[in-house]
Parts: sequence; C-alpha cells; structure tokens
Amino acid sequence: MAIELSQCKLVYRKYFSFWDKLSDGQKELLCANTRSVSYKKGTNIHGAEDSCTGAIIVVSGCLRAYLLSENGKEITLCRFKTGEVCMLSASCVLESITFDVVIDAEEDSEVYIVRGDVMAKVSKENIYVENYALDNAVKRFSDVVWVMQQIMFLSLDKRIAVFLWDEMVRTDSTVIKLTHEQIAKYISSAREAVTRMLRYLASEGIVELSRKGITIIDKEKLRALTV
Amino acid sequence: MAIELSQCKLVYRKYFSFWDKLSDGQKELLCANTRSVSYKKGTNIHGAEDSCTGAIIVVSGCLRAYLLSENGKEITLCRFKTGEVCMLSASCVLESITFDVVIDAEEDSEVYIVRGDVMAKVSKENIYVENYALDNAVKRFSDVVWVMQQIMFLSLDKRIAVFLWDEMVRTDSTVIKLTHEQIAKYISSAREAVTRMLRYLASEGIVELSRKGITIIDKEKLRALTV
Repeated sequence: MAIELSQCKLVYRKYFSFWDKLSDGQKELLCANTRSVSYKKGTNIHGAEDSCTGAIIVVSGCLRAYLLSENGKEITLCRFKTGEVCMLSASCVLESITFDVVIDAEEDSEVYIVRGDVMAKVSKENIYVENYALDNAVKRFSDVVWVMQQIMFLSLDKRIAVFLWDEMVRTDSTVIKLTHEQIAKYISSAREAVTRMLRYLASEGIVELSRKGITIIDKEKLRALTV
Repeated sequence: MAIELSQCKLVYRKYFSFWDKLSDGQKELLCANTRSVSYKKGTNIHGAEDSCTGAIIVVSGCLRAYLLSENGKEITLCRFKTGEVCMLSASCVLESITFDVVIDAEEDSEVYIVRGDVMAKVSKENIYVENYALDNAVKRFSDVVWVMQQIMFLSLDKRIAVFLWDEMVRTDSTVIKLTHEQIAKYISSAREAVTRMLRYLASEGIVELSRKGITIIDKEKLRALTV
C-alpha cells in the first residue's frame, strides 16, 4: 500500500537524518516509492537471492537478518527493532556490501519499504543520503563482530545465558517462549547441545523447562553466568 | 618520521578519493600530522586498548587485523595490502565502530599513519572525508562476513584448502612457510585439528609436509577441495 505524501514527509523526518538535505523533488520521489507492508511473524521479507528490496523502516515489530548456508545452517547477524532502518536489504545502494542476507519478520511487523533502485538514485545524487546508508551499515558491522566474538570466544553456557538474559530484557518476561531448536538457530549452535546445556541450567535451579517454554527462576545466578 | 608536504600531497591524491574536496588548510593539516613508519614482520601496530591510532596507509607490506579474546584466541578479520588504507585503527573517526581490533605487520611493512584525532576533526568538517571513512569500513564489513561464513559454514578440510590456495596465490609460491600453529590462528581453529587435516591432505598426495613448510604438490586436487 502506498502512503500519503504529507504523512510520509512527517514520518521520514523522524527516521532519516538526511531528510532536511533533500530537494523537494527527492523527497517526493522517495515518498512516491514507499510502500507500507504488514508481515506476519515468521514471514520472509528479503531473500538471499533478492538483489535490492530497498530500505526497510520498522514502524513496529522486529526483523531478523541472517546468513543462510547451502545446507540450511543459519547465523543471525542482527535484529532491526521498532524505529530502526535496515539497509542490508539495499545492496544496490551500498556497493561495498557484497554478501547476501535473508531477512524475516521475527514478530508481526509493520514496515515501510523504500524501493532500492530509487534509494540508490537519490544516494548517488546526494552525499548525505549515501553517508546515512553507510553509517547505518557500519553500525551493523559492530553488531556482527559482537556476534562473531560470542560464537568464537564464549563457551556455550555463557552464550545461552547471555541469550536468555537478553530475551528476558527484550520481552520483559521471565518466560522465554522459544523451542530449543529456535535458540540453537539464534546462537548458531546445535539443538542437542542447547538441550543439554538447558538441562544443566535447570539442574542448577537457574531455569525451569516446561511445555510453555523456559522460565527463568534465578535471575542472579543467570546474570552471573553472563559476565 | 614526518613526510614532506609536497610529497604528501602527491601521495594522498592516490590513496584518498576525497583529496580534491579538501580545503588547502585541511590538506596541510593532514600532511603535517602524518608519520612515515617502518615495521618489522610480526610487530604490533595497533592494540585493542589503543583508542585511536589513526588511518594507516600501507605503502608496502601487509597488515593483519584481528580480534583477540581474553584467553589469547584470535580471529583474523581482514588484511590490508600494499595500496590499501586501514580505518579500523581510527575508531575516533568512525563512532559506529564499537569493537576493538589488534593490528600487526604480517610482513615487513612501510606505512603512513595519519593521526586519529586530526583525521576525526577533518572528517567532522568535511562530509567527503567521513563518507570515505565509512565506505572503507563497509568494505571490510563484507570481508568479515566472508570470514564468518568460512568459519561457520565450511568444514575444516575446505577451510584449510581455501587458506592454502589463497596463500599460494598471494605469495606466488607452492611452498607455504607457516607452522600449523600459525595456520590454526589464521583460520580460527585448533592446532591439533590443523595438523590432523594436513596429514590427511599429505596422505592424499595433495601436499607434502617437511621442515621447510607445506609444499603443494597437486594443485588440481587442492583446487577441487576449495569449491
């Protein structure tokens, strides 16, 4: 669904730091090529084969960007939450980005999508737009290095503890409603290893495992594992 | 050692795409704050604790940027070769870079170092400089994702084969003069696992192991393992 020009101008001032540096023509071009889309939890938004979906503005919900191997293995690179803008789905804007990511809606999400080729055109004309796109990507660079450090340097107990802690804070709930399979995907480990470690954490009285998910029962002990 | 202004201006036009967008004052400021330094192979140039060494221009040689864990584990992120510029050592210029890398001279290297705080000042004044710095970092983002894919998605035989092949091409020699320990560091694996795999490759007639290093004797078979 296209969005109205007046609403678009109001919205974009909030998301795009370059907005005031655009000509009126450029503003109208971006707005005219913006769609408002709703995605159900779990829907794929951008595939590894899609060259340039465009800039995705998360109005509400949460997106997950990940690498996908030929045999289906995943590495979560980063998440885009309410108010954030994803440029990794706009590789035609950022020629230095040579890898392909997959982006799914991790929760029910409302997004605006600015067409990639239009964004690329404006970015070529206006250095402030290019600058924004690059800065947006570099921020994610830091996220990805963090993920890499987690995977390579941390032991599995620490990785799971950090993940559970972050989930608890993010969802503001001590009940983590995820399967072991899902957790394994998020932290790039194997399902069996995650199950084993969760059982260990349960035996230590840190979590409780049940059909409804993983309940954190000793926050202090969990916290201690994350540092 | 400081470098002469006239020489600096000549050199910088080649390395910095933003050069013609600078004021005369900015050009002089950058040149006045440039040092020419020689590093012996293996020397540390930038430590994880150093906040802002500056932009490092590789006049000759090769630098290696890596992450270092508390217990000494390393992950090689990328290399900077002759003619390339490293901005990961200038985190004060790039505020979105929140991780710390260590940078060593991997070969005897001649570099120019532009002081970080001076580079940051000019970058704040001139969007073309900021744009250059961001673009330089985003290129490395792609390198790092590639490394991550190698580590997470490829089996060890493939990783070692890719590494040996790249080393052969890079050094233009079929003799790889590295210890198993060094190779393990480069590909972020364990020394024992590398030794086991190299013995396997030797038994397959792909390489020959000796005191002088690893000699590639069947390029075709090695190549087949990399794809």
